[in-house]
Amino acid sequence: MATTPPTRSPELRKDPVTNQWVIFSPARAKRPSDFKSKSPENPNNNSSSCPFCIGNEHQCAPEIFRVPPDPNWKLRVIENLYPALSRKLDHPNGQNDDSSSELSGLGWVVAGFGFHDVVIETPVHSVQLSDLDPSEIGDVLIAYKRRIEQIKQFDSIKYIQVFKNHGASAGASMSHSHSQMLSLPIVPPSVSTRLNSMKEHFNRTGKCSLCQVQSKDLLINETSRFFSIAPYASSFPFEIWIIPRDHSSHFDELDNKKAVDLGGLLKLILKKMALQLNNPPFNFMIHTSPVQVTDSELPYSHWFLQIIPQLTGVGGFELGSGCYINPVFPDDAAKILRELNVP
Amino acid sequence: MATTPPTRSPELRKDPVTNQWVIFSPARAKRPSDFKSKSPENPNNNSSSCPFCIGNEHQCAPEIFRVPPDPNWKLRVIENLYPALSRKLDHPNGQNDDSSSELSGLGWVVAGFGFHDVVIETPVHSVQLSDLDPSEIGDVLIAYKRRIEQIKQFDSIKYIQVFKNHGASAGASMSHSHSQMLSLPIVPPSVSTRLNSMKEHFNRTGKCSLCQVQSKDLLINETSRFFSIAPYASSFPFEIWIIPRDHSSHFDELDNKKAVDLGGLLKLILKKMALQLNNPPFNFMIHTSPVQVTDSELPYSHWFLQIIPQLTGVGGFELGSGCYINPVFPDDAAKILRELNVP
Ligand SMILES: Nc1ncnc2c1ncn2[C@@H]1O[C@H](COP(=O)(O)OP(=O)(O)O[C@H]2O[C@H](CO)[C@@H](O)[C@H](O)[C@H]2O)[C@@H](O)[C@H]1O
Ligand SMILES: Nc1ncnc2c1ncn2[C@@H]1O[C@H](COP(=O)(O)OP(=O)(O)O[C@H]2O[C@H](CO)[C@@H](O)[C@H](O)[C@H]2O)[C@@H](O)[C@H]1O
Repeated sequence: MATTPPTRSPELRKDPVTNQWVIFSPARAKRPSDFKSKSPENPNNNSSSCPFCIGNEHQCAPEIFRVPPDPNWKLRVIENLYPALSRKLDHPNGQNDDSSSELSGLGWVVAGFGFHDVVIETPVHSVQLSDLDPSEIGDVLIAYKRRIEQIKQFDSIKYIQVFKNHGASAGASMSHSHSQMLSLPIVPPSVSTRLNSMKEHFNRTGKCSLCQVQSKDLLINETSRFFSIAPYASSFPFEIWIIPRDHSSHFDELDNKKAVDLGGLLKLILKKMALQLNNPPFNFMIHTSPVQVTDSELPYSHWFLQIIPQLTGVGGFELGSGCYINPVFPDDAAKILRELNVP
Repeated sequence: MATTPPTRSPELRKDPVTNQWVIFSPARAKRPSDFKSKSPENPNNNSSSCPFCIGNEHQCAPEIFRVPPDPNWKLRVIENLYPALSRKLDHPNGQNDDSSSELSGLGWVVAGFGFHDVVIETPVHSVQLSDLDPSEIGDVLIAYKRRIEQIKQFDSIKYIQVFKNHGASAGASMSHSHSQMLSLPIVPPSVSTRLNSMKEHFNRTGKCSLCQVQSKDLLINETSRFFSIAPYASSFPFEIWIIPRDHSSHFDELDNKKAVDLGGLLKLILKKMALQLNNPPFNFMIHTSPVQVTDSELPYSHWFLQIIPQLTGVGGFELGSGCYINPVFPDDAAKILRELNVP
């Protein structure tokens, strides 16, 4: 992070989308550490023992679908063998949030009904998502969409979180390229916060906060249908958002053409991140709208994809306050990534 | 985590204090990992090169105070050499939250005025907080209080976050036992959320949610003035809260007698945690009320100390949704810690 000008004063910023405060503090980047840097990750490169490799399908939890539907698949959507939520519990259809029962004084409880799926993005152990063609990445995105469309049929599912963990420090336990989809019987807190914040912006300005982002300083790359930025109040150094240019409330409004376009931009951004930041562990998350959304919510709710390279850990301050400390200003990060040439 | 009965179904719980949803899922504890377990931490044990050791005071940022005030100090409060916020920026006294300026469409910004202090808890490199006597831990707590009382004089400081990082995976960059105090020109988001949630509980039940916690199943240990529990919707396995028995809105209401009592309970809990969980990295955070608080907020705002052993990482699901997945139910964690004998 020697790239950050050392002279900028610290600043607190709050994002109109996430409603989160972030402390920008270039001085923090210079502090020394008593602890040795992280040892290189030692993933399992033995594809015979990897359940996600082609040929090892029998080692996996049941398949939901594969693309194409023959033995020579290019991607598979399967059940998670160690699911956080259970598809076997009773799920009172049509239940709403208020049905959660309160235990006297202790808190609220809801049965852990839900779906937890794994998307195996490639049959080959050594291939990473960014190695795929734009249209193959598009196929992965369309697989998310297809699975969302299946799950939407369950009235008791309120929100579907799509996410990817790449590398051990990003939380991954499997090294074979994959992502996950966790379908929840509640709308999670950061989604409610985001929707409330975007609503507040809309009521005040008459505009959707993501349609309105038009800062040249924060722009990284754009295509005809999507653009990528370092967000104004990035919680993490080199955090990146990819946003559909046209207003769209739900990720599953994506069509095949847009999926290829997004696939190309995602590939470029992941390549740039790997090049600039030395192949960092990373997470990406799709931020969409709750499954059931009223018409009045549609004008201010705009989906996007968030990418977070894992460069710094967090500590007690972040755990306690919910604020992050970011040593890199987003316009510096955007400039570096914008000007980077991918060979 | 072989201690968790494997048969419990997953459950979602929401805490009336934090207002956070947590997924309890014992099945998750059993998933395998492709990545080697973390390499043992290799802290700097060379006290001649540690600025926090006695004799190396000249290597540190300026001192604020020491206890006792002579060369043979037992603890020191100093400025952080790489502060997240700057005490040198202009700080318009008496400013309130609404004074933050909004940049057109991008978000809000506030100058990064604030104090970032380090509390060196012992002069000796090899001594940990839990090695100190209850009264010496009490001295550390009283040092927090004394520093809070100084900082309260600045009208533009809205909240003071006291926290401790122990061990590299808990974020620590220094291995010499220490904690930190970051004084902010805003009330951070998780504090507002907590206060709103406690207010809602108070309005509904007429009672403070922390005065009301009376669950035998969640109790770990208690003293005449404090009790410790595994909270009903613990975000992390073996998360522990220490709560003052008598209603108290601000940590700095602590007196010397209570500080020694809390020091003893904190020591016991840290010892139990180290014994049961193999000396894990951990964070603790003091959750108190904003510096300026109105009388009407006082009846529902009750401070507590939260301890989080770092046993599991987080991934894209938590980053995206703000929900945590916890493989250990709190009544199981409480039972194990309650029944543990410390030699
Ligand atoms: N044979 C098999 N068939 C089907 N599924 C199999 C399988 N073998 C393993 N799996 C599943 O594959 C998934 C791989 O997921 P990741 O590597 O992205 O991270 P994981 O979910 O373990 O945890 C990370 O992400 C979660 C969610 O963010 C965090 O809670 C956690 O702390 C972090 O480590 C696991 O969920 C595992 O249960
Ligand atoms: N000679 C000296 N004099 C005075 N101060 C000195 C000093 N040398 C070092 N320091 C300061 O001492 C502090 C030690 O703090 P910790 O070890 O608890 O974690 P740190 O703040 O580095 O970051 C962790 O905690 C923060 C806050 O939670 C997270 O943002 C971050 O990711 C995580 O690694 C550092 O803040 C450092 O700036």
